Amino acid sequence: MEIVGTIQELREKLRQARRDIERTKPQSTVGFMPTLGYMHEGHLSLIRKAREENDIVVISIFVNPLQFGQNEDFDKYPRDPERDARLAAEAGADFVFVPSVAEMYPSPTKTTVVVRDLTDVLCGASRPGHFEGVATVVTKLFNIVQPDRAYFGMKDAQQVAVIERFVADLNMPVRIVRCETLREPDGLAMSSRNVYLSEEERRQALVLSQSLRNVERWVAEEGMTIEGLHRRIRETIESAPLARIDYVDIRTYPDMEPVLSLDEWNGGKPILVALAVKFGQTRLIDNRLFFA
Amino acid sequence: MEIVGTIQELREKLRQARRDIERTKPQSTVGFMPTLGYMHEGHLSLIRKAREENDIVVISIFVNPLQFGQNEDFDKYPRDPERDARLAAEAGADFVFVPSVAEMYPSPTKTTVVVRDLTDVLCGASRPGHFEGVATVVTKLFNIVQPDRAYFGMKDAQQVAVIERFVADLNMPVRIVRCETLREPDGLAMSSRNVYLSEEERRQALVLSQSLRNVERWVAEEGMTIEGLHRRIRETIESAPLARIDYVDIRTYPDMEPVLSLDEWNGGKPILVALAVKFGQTRLIDNRLFFA
Repeated sequence: MEIVGTIQELREKLRQARRDIERTKPQSTVGFMPTLGYMHEGHLSLIRKAREENDIVVISIFVNPLQFGQNEDFDKYPRDPERDARLAAEAGADFVFVPSVAEMYPSPTKTTVVVRDLTDVLCGASRPGHFEGVATVVTKLFNIVQPDRAYFGMKDAQQVAVIERFVADLNMPVRIVRCETLREPDGLAMSSRNVYLSEEERRQALVLSQSLRNVERWVAEEGMTIEGLHRRIRETIESAPLARIDYVDIRTYPDMEPVLSLDEWNGGKPILVALAVKFGQTRLIDNRLFFA
Repeated sequence: MEIVGTIQELREKLRQARRDIERTKPQSTVGFMPTLGYMHEGHLSLIRKAREENDIVVISIFVNPLQFGQNEDFDKYPRDPERDARLAAEAGADFVFVPSVAEMYPSPTKTTVVVRDLTDVLCGASRPGHFEGVATVVTKLFNIVQPDRAYFGMKDAQQVAVIERFVADLNMPVRIVRCETLREPDGLAMSSRNVYLSEEERRQALVLSQSLRNVERWVAEEGMTIEGLHRRIRETIESAPLARIDYVDIRTYPDMEPVLSLDEWNGGKPILVALAVKFGQTRLIDNRLFFA
């Protein structure tokens, strides 16, 4: 495994690596996973999947300032690049790209990739500009790495929908691979931000996955409505005294149209139940996708 | 020369063409010129340059609805794809990509590439949304063709600045090659829209190139100011009774900062003098770049 800090060096090394492989087979493939780092088992499962499916595996570790709001946790986002690199190597990465902010943004970018509609709801509504920052940096990374496949965890389901959409709209030559959310044994979705939680917050945060696990059962109840379903989820989350709900939302996936009645529940479209809840300063998200 | 209508077919043919070339040399290069079509000698000079510098030459002919305003000439933009294909072949193109609107936009795009600042002035001010449409379609075409070099005429100097900027900002792996404006023997900049001009309009349209030719002489005049230079250009254009000025502007290039005094003229930065003038329904542009 090699750690690479500059775009030019990464491009040269990838060109060489592809050339080496193509000496013995007609085509090489590159699998890519971009991350903010501070990796957990969820990230590692993506790297392992990329390893299985590709000749060359690249990951990037970059805390992208463009996707953080003014009052968000850019500065205190947890970082541990050395541990990350070791874990990435163990999981099968060939190249770990760790650019500086100056390498990625040598001057303030005048260009952004803007995805309409999909980004106005859920985390896009709570975090204005967030998905513009994500779409822009992922586009940059795709252009730098030129992967054949890119791996994203469904914990960030809206992010996956946004990325799939701009990849299709802009005809980017990359296949997006959706990967399942990994969970702790008690159900909490894995997240780099979980380290912020106090012991008590960590315990109460289980209401997110608990409420998602109950959705199917609630939907099956006699006389249930979409409003009733929203209420059950909210009540479950609010049973945790430290929980402050940012949103509970039910939408078609990946179009993110609102689901206004339970008739739509069996309408043939995949449906996303998505949650964002704050515990203290820590904002957690979780979701479940039905009929996908 | 082959005419190709679909993205998938173009990608397959390019992959095959590259593979064929790489049997005898280590790397192949693709040169690309996107155009709205109705080609003139200016386009052909770009194709010839691409032919000299690359193994494979691709052009696209696509009148992109996204870059035309509501009241602009999308429907009546001149089209002649058969003549274009013949001329492109003679000039050395290997592939002419002629996609339908449905092929390029199978559903309305939710994604656009937005370039700030550079696009607020000159043609961007006169044509809101124009450069967002250009940046988006050029990004799509770059992702489809994956060229090593792309060729653009400096008649659209602001377009070149915008394209260079988003290519740099988004780390696109393509080199933008600036090509000089081609002119008719009497000085009129070549443009597909010139065919719209009546005989009298065509004659009067010479004031654009005439005023640009005089700029250096005027700047050298004793006591000349930036306001005086603007006035001389406007007076020259307005000497044509049919001319209606859209803008006369003097800016640094490619940053498009306003040039507020003649001291900046010799300040070491390239300076663009840019004109847009209407004759009847036909809007013509022309420019000259100094110190580039």
